[in-house]
Amino acid sequence: MTAIPGPIDPPTRLLMGPGPISAYPSVLRAMSAPLVGQYDPFMTATMTETQELYRGVWSTANDATLLIDGTSRAGIEAAMISLIRPGDRVLVPVFGRFGHLLAEIAERALAEVHTIEVPWGQVFPTSVLEDAIVRVRPALLALVQGDTSTTMLQPLEDIGEICARHGVLFYTDATASLGGNAFEADAWGLDAATAGLQKCLGGPSGSAPITLSERAVEIIRSRAKVEAGIREPGDVDAPDFVRSNYFDLGMILDYWGPRRLNHHTEATSMLYGARECARVLLLEGRDAVIERHRINGEAMLAGVRGLGLVVFGDVAHKMSNVVAVEIPEGVPGDVARAAMLNDFGIEIGTSFGPLHGRVWRIGTMGYNARTDAVLQTLAALETVLRRFGAAVPVAGGVEAALSAYGSASDGD
Amino acid sequence: MTAIPGPIDPPTRLLMGPGPISAYPSVLRAMSAPLVGQYDPFMTATMTETQELYRGVWSTANDATLLIDGTSRAGIEAAMISLIRPGDRVLVPVFGRFGHLLAEIAERALAEVHTIEVPWGQVFPTSVLEDAIVRVRPALLALVQGDTSTTMLQPLEDIGEICARHGVLFYTDATASLGGNAFEADAWGLDAATAGLQKCLGGPSGSAPITLSERAVEIIRSRAKVEAGIREPGDVDAPDFVRSNYFDLGMILDYWGPRRLNHHTEATSMLYGARECARVLLLEGRDAVIERHRINGEAMLAGVRGLGLVVFGDVAHKMSNVVAVEIPEGVPGDVARAAMLNDFGIEIGTSFGPLHGRVWRIGTMGYNARTDAVLQTLAALETVLRRFGAAVPVAGGVEAALSAYGSASDGD
Repeated sequence: MTAIPGPIDPPTRLLMGPGPISAYPSVLRAMSAPLVGQYDPFMTATMTETQELYRGVWSTANDATLLIDGTSRAGIEAAMISLIRPGDRVLVPVFGRFGHLLAEIAERALAEVHTIEVPWGQVFPTSVLEDAIVRVRPALLALVQGDTSTTMLQPLEDIGEICARHGVLFYTDATASLGGNAFEADAWGLDAATAGLQKCLGGPSGSAPITLSERAVEIIRSRAKVEAGIREPGDVDAPDFVRSNYFDLGMILDYWGPRRLNHHTEATSMLYGARECARVLLLEGRDAVIERHRINGEAMLAGVRGLGLVVFGDVAHKMSNVVAVEIPEGVPGDVARAAMLNDFGIEIGTSFGPLHGRVWRIGTMGYNARTDAVLQTLAALETVLRRFGAAVPVAGGVEAALSAYGSASDGD
Repeated sequence: MTAIPGPIDPPTRLLMGPGPISAYPSVLRAMSAPLVGQYDPFMTATMTETQELYRGVWSTANDATLLIDGTSRAGIEAAMISLIRPGDRVLVPVFGRFGHLLAEIAERALAEVHTIEVPWGQVFPTSVLEDAIVRVRPALLALVQGDTSTTMLQPLEDIGEICARHGVLFYTDATASLGGNAFEADAWGLDAATAGLQKCLGGPSGSAPITLSERAVEIIRSRAKVEAGIREPGDVDAPDFVRSNYFDLGMILDYWGPRRLNHHTEATSMLYGARECARVLLLEGRDAVIERHRINGEAMLAGVRGLGLVVFGDVAHKMSNVVAVEIPEGVPGDVARAAMLNDFGIEIGTSFGPLHGRVWRIGTMGYNARTDAVLQTLAALETVLRRFGAAVPVAGGVEAALSAYGSASDGD
């Protein structure tokens, strides 16, 4: 390296894509708090306090509520490989990109993976899920709650009861949805749920909240028998041990639990950030935050329709916090997104898989689920659409959004 | 939760244990920089820039130099499970706690693990390592450079040549040592090396620098064939695929490389912090930072001897950045450590395994490898030792350290 660069100095961005999004200012402040030692009384108290905060976020009494030190994907993998025994049947209903991810992780965990699919833009009727459960008789159902690739929100309310009736463990990936849509870990009968900070929780990627039912903990404990030296070297037939040390929830539970057994060195700054994400959510009130996402999501939805854009997918089952719109004929999608970024400092999202090049995804999450962010985005998008010759209705997106905000306050 | 707690407000600590340690102030500032999107030109440029900074830290031209999103243990697991095929022979020389960790991770990766051991407080003579390599004929040698559990620094200079001669991949865990002791990834013939930020690099735990030789990358690429849907469900006999999605370096290399294929959502704040750790190191100069660790480590060593404490282990093979001292007869080790923390805000370390209750470990790392931190620690420790009736020589630790600093500056 010839010249050493200066301190990090990011450009100002309003992140209105499907995530990561702009963090709450207080979360960024928390990230720079001084470090303490791993077993400092302040550290262990902060870990315990953070667990309690996340019980509030997840709406659970689960003792086993904690953080995995990695991105949301680390939480998914920790949950799945700790619950799946090699050869277990795992059912993964796929309604977007992240269903495929769950299936792939289950496959790598040597599960017998069964998938069912609906076209992108739809969710599964509960009866279809129950039929598949009856047919496959899986050990584990792994189901995404909100898939940002399609913006769809899979209803989960009735699934836990079905799983319990059929003796199936129920795991959900709530990365994209938690904090911006209803989530009731206990009332919905979840055995495991994971998330990340970089969506509706309004923090940086790098810490994965997880909660586990007592039943899930029992299974994990029953597999936590492998310690260095106990297995014979080369005993590759041992069917039941977790292939990962880093994601072995049996060990991680003992690190977060009263035994405080040393495992990894906790990512202290990420812990501070994760704590603040939960704290700001609970200070505002969980229901109030979900309602704020609903109101701003509906304003954005009204706004993009006011711009003449066609919304993708089954809007009745859309997440509150993200909307996908078809890129109008003749508008160069990536060039328009670059104009949003370069001229206005506003990021909106591209898309993956079958939707690649077809839709933009626009998020209203966490700190950015607020009026000025919605209106700035709509005003900028209107300018860019007109620049590329799209037919934008005269009333435009901002007025449509304001009108939606008006009905929202009237309605409440 | 009845009352929601206030913003995070950690007590002031001088972290003089074996790590984690107090971060450089500029690293903490970097942690709170605003977020940008995952494919923002600023983000990808920052990733590329950080790779180049870490080539300087590792002393390598390896293209495959990047960060794993997790703690140092995540880096270890990513390297090992991506390089080890099930059934591979792996040789792990164990000279402390972290050798056992490497053996356990190799075992979970279904390796045929062979360990050799020396008593805690010693390192392996090169000839012993070569003999074991000839006997075991492993596919991979996994060797810790610096093991904080014993404070020992395994010499690595000649091992790479031996490995190359015998066709053995050479991996080292440099978590505790990198940045405070010499490290030459290319000159020493490393195929893979991993670290963390929370030791001599002076940052928070949560990001793991890794560097991989071309030979290691070839092996990883040859295993990166498994994508969703390519394997048949239930095909548990496929011998060669990596069991983890999160730690599949084949995919992670394509995320950091020119293809920029989406994998996890990069932990942006940890990236900023990791970048700043490398930046401050290279600004000061890699050799200058290593020399600063040497000078302050020698001052601490002289200081604890000046306090009448007996140093544990083979001092000629000690890491610069940590010293272990026997707890004097009659001094209650944990009570004395608590007094250091509560009265002075200074943390020193306890110990594990065979050394538990026998030694304290005192670090001088990263930002805290500096005179005032060394002298504060020695002065506080002297007071505490006297309080518990230890026989402290009249001249004491601070004067001994100052005298060592004096010789250090004379000598240079």
